[in-house]
Amino acid sequence: MSPQVAVIIVAGGSGRRMGGKLPKQFMTIGGKPILMHTLQRFVDVLKNPQIILVLPTARIEYWKELCRTYGFNQPHIICEGGETRFDSVKRGLEHIGEASLVAIHDGVRPLVSGALIQRAIADAKVFGAVIPVVTPIDSLRQIDAEGNHIIDRTQLRIVQTPQVFHAKVIRKAYEQPYSSAFTDDASVVEASGHDICLCEGDYANLKITTPIDIITAEALLTAQAKLTKS
Amino acid sequence: MSPQVAVIIVAGGSGRRMGGKLPKQFMTIGGKPILMHTLQRFVDVLKNPQIILVLPTARIEYWKELCRTYGFNQPHIICEGGETRFDSVKRGLEHIGEASLVAIHDGVRPLVSGALIQRAIADAKVFGAVIPVVTPIDSLRQIDAEGNHIIDRTQLRIVQTPQVFHAKVIRKAYEQPYSSAFTDDASVVEASGHDICLCEGDYANLKITTPIDIITAEALLTAQAKLTKS
Repeated sequence: MSPQVAVIIVAGGSGRRMGGKLPKQFMTIGGKPILMHTLQRFVDVLKNPQIILVLPTARIEYWKELCRTYGFNQPHIICEGGETRFDSVKRGLEHIGEASLVAIHDGVRPLVSGALIQRAIADAKVFGAVIPVVTPIDSLRQIDAEGNHIIDRTQLRIVQTPQVFHAKVIRKAYEQPYSSAFTDDASVVEASGHDICLCEGDYANLKITTPIDIITAEALLTAQAKLTKS
Repeated sequence: MSPQVAVIIVAGGSGRRMGGKLPKQFMTIGGKPILMHTLQRFVDVLKNPQIILVLPTARIEYWKELCRTYGFNQPHIICEGGETRFDSVKRGLEHIGEASLVAIHDGVRPLVSGALIQRAIADAKVFGAVIPVVTPIDSLRQIDAEGNHIIDRTQLRIVQTPQVFHAKVIRKAYEQPYSSAFTDDASVVEASGHDICLCEGDYANLKITTPIDIITAEALLTAQAKLTKS
């Protein structure tokens, strides 16, 4: 029997970077809200995953209404988000039940591939803590007290999600007090003393953050749909 | 009188990351080759810029043929590229003549805005060496002998082009012997002992490197065209 996977989709953000009133996770690409694409990707590749969707409290009724409007009936647990991403994930973890693996994914990464989800889960079974990464294409500079200087990008990796952990590893990590250095789940797990294993990410696994990203995501989604049909 | 600006467009690459036979700078978006968009952006915003286009030797005749096919008649000097980006820029610098400022730009960044070009040039007049940067959206990790660890992304910047320099600063920098640490022109200038000033880049100033980027660039170009018309 394969380990039961719980998937926490983190969508607690209020979308301030987007400039609009509607948080970006509810915006539409390819004719339906971004969050529905994201959930569907996990449903398509995993056998009956337990999906926990963390939403801003003020948007829970709106989400239920969207599900009715779009006829979206994939089973999922709705959980109220907190002030920070850390709080939101911590609340989501209260719902994972008996799952032995926990995949935590950004709600605004709707283009995640089934292959990437499977890769991260397979590696996490072995290593306990796995994150997908890609190598930066552009040069990077570091700012310090003396100005700024080039840093060796071949030693850097851009971090994506889903980040997948043994349930006991992620539960223990989230017992720590909050730190502003926690920018993702791997940083929380690392601070708890567990090594982080890297797996191959995907440049198309876009995190939708700005209006430009909406345009990009729409185009990539259309291209993926064409590839699937051909 | 404003300083005369020479623009070196670096398009010497053979496009191995693209997987196809045609280097990416010649691929088409919005109905014409990427390089024509790139050159046009500089022509649109600068008064009679001196444009030096660095091309792979094997593709120079092909480029001339493309210019005839598309009726592209913006004046530019064609220069043969070298083995590395460093060599290509060094050869381009032999053609800058009396220009007091040199802007060096990736041929595969066709979406650069006029505002960004003007900002970098204005700052370079004052500081001698200016590069546009944006802050990373995603978490970043650094790989070292002991594994990998989170690094503070608030202190990191993603580097774009055009990178703009006083002519004497960039000429002196390119008298150095080649180093594999030279990933862009700022890294060459920094190694020559000159400080690098940062200006605000633009997330839409995409560097086309992979097939996904072609799809993205096409979509952004269409969106920009709609904004201009409305």
